[in-house]
Amino acid sequence: MRDVYQHDIAEFAARLDDLAEMARWEMRKATCALLEDDVALARAVNADRRAVTELHHRIDEHAIALLARQQPVASDLRTIVAGLRMSADLERMGVLADHVAALALVDGPRPIVPAELRPTVQAMARVADRMAQRVCSALVNRSVADAEQVIAYDDEMDRLLTDLHRHLLSGELPSATAMNLTLLGRYYERFADHTVSLAKRVAFLIGARRYSTAATTGALG
Amino acid sequence: MRDVYQHDIAEFAARLDDLAEMARWEMRKATCALLEDDVALARAVNADRRAVTELHHRIDEHAIALLARQQPVASDLRTIVAGLRMSADLERMGVLADHVAALALVDGPRPIVPAELRPTVQAMARVADRMAQRVCSALVNRSVADAEQVIAYDDEMDRLLTDLHRHLLSGELPSATAMNLTLLGRYYERFADHTVSLAKRVAFLIGARRYSTAATTGALG
Repeated sequence: MRDVYQHDIAEFAARLDDLAEMARWEMRKATCALLEDDVALARAVNADRRAVTELHHRIDEHAIALLARQQPVASDLRTIVAGLRMSADLERMGVLADHVAALALVDGPRPIVPAELRPTVQAMARVADRMAQRVCSALVNRSVADAEQVIAYDDEMDRLLTDLHRHLLSGELPSATAMNLTLLGRYYERFADHTVSLAKRVAFLIGARRYSTAATTGALG
Repeated sequence: MRDVYQHDIAEFAARLDDLAEMARWEMRKATCALLEDDVALARAVNADRRAVTELHHRIDEHAIALLARQQPVASDLRTIVAGLRMSADLERMGVLADHVAALALVDGPRPIVPAELRPTVQAMARVADRMAQRVCSALVNRSVADAEQVIAYDDEMDRLLTDLHRHLLSGELPSATAMNLTLLGRYYERFADHTVSLAKRVAFLIGARRYSTAATTGALG
C-alpha cells in the first residue's frame, strides 16, 4: 500500500516536471515567433495553450485524489499542497507564453520590437528562459542550488525591465509600439515572477528553511 | 467533534470573506488615489499590502491545518482546496490594487490619465468594483445569481479594454503616457479575471454544475 502511494506521489511529481518543461518551451517558441515575425509558430503556441491547461487540470485532479485517498500528513501534505500551487504557477507561465505569441499576431507597426530595443528584449527572453530551465532542473534534481540561481537571475530581469521602462519614458515611440512593448515587458516580468515563486517552493520542500512557509502556502512573486 | 469541525470550516470561510472585502476596498482606494492624484492615499494602499498578504497566509495555513487534522473528503475537501485557490486569487487582487496605487506615485506626465481617457478608466474602475462587490456577496450569501453577475460583467470589462487599446493604437500620446495606461488597463483586466475565477469557483461549490470542475481545480481566467 505504501509502495503504491509512493509511486503515486512520484507520478504526481513527474507530471509537474512535464508541465514545467512545457511552459519553458512554449515561451521559447513564443519569443522566437515574436522576434522572427513567424506567424505560423505564433499560431502553434496559441494552439498549445489547451494542452498546457489540460495537463494543469490533470495535475490538480491528481492532487485532490491523493488528498482524498491517502489522507497525507506532514511533509507529504505540504508537498501536495505546494504541488497545487506550482501547477497554477506553471499554467500561468504557459498563458503568458500564449500572450507573447499573440503579440506576434496583432495588427500594427512592424516589427513589434524596434531595432534599438531588440537587444533588451532578447536579453529579457534569455533570462526568462534560463530561469525556467533552472526551475526545471531544481524540480527534477531537487536542487537547492538551481532554485537559488533562479532567484539570483530575478535581479537581472528587474534591471532589464527598468531599462525598457526608461526607454519608454524618455523615448518618442508611437503609442502603439509603446503599448505592445509595455505588455511584452510585463509578460516576461510575470513569467520570471512565477519561476521565482516555484524556486522558493522547491527550496522550501527540499528543506532550505530560510525559505519561509510562505513558499508553500502563499502566492509569492 | 463534528461541531468543532463545522465551526472551523465556518471560520475559514469567514476569513476568505474578509480577504475579499479587503481586496475590493484596496482597489477602490487605489483608483481614487490615481484619479485624484492623492499621494497620501496611494501610500496608504502600498502600506496595506502587507496586511493583505498576511491574511492570505493565515488562510492558507488554516487550510493546511484543516487538511491535516480533519482529513476531509468529498465536498469539504473540495471546499478547502477551492479556498486555497480563492485565497491566491484574492491576494493577487490586493497586489494589483497596490500596483494601481504605485502608478499614482510614479514620476512623469500629470495627470497619469489624460482627460479624453478619464471616462474609460473611470468606467473600468467602476466595473471592476462591481465585480468585486458581487464576488463578496456571492461568497457571503452563497449566491449563484451574484456569481453569474460577475461573469456577465466581464464582457463589459473586455469592451472597455478594447476601447482603451484602440485609443492607444490610433492615438498620438507620449510613450510614457501610453506605457502607464497600458499597465493600468492590464491591472484592471487581471483584477476582473480574478473575480471571474472566484465567481466560477463559488458557483461550482454551491452546486451549479455547469461550472466545470476546472472552477475548483484550475487557474481560471
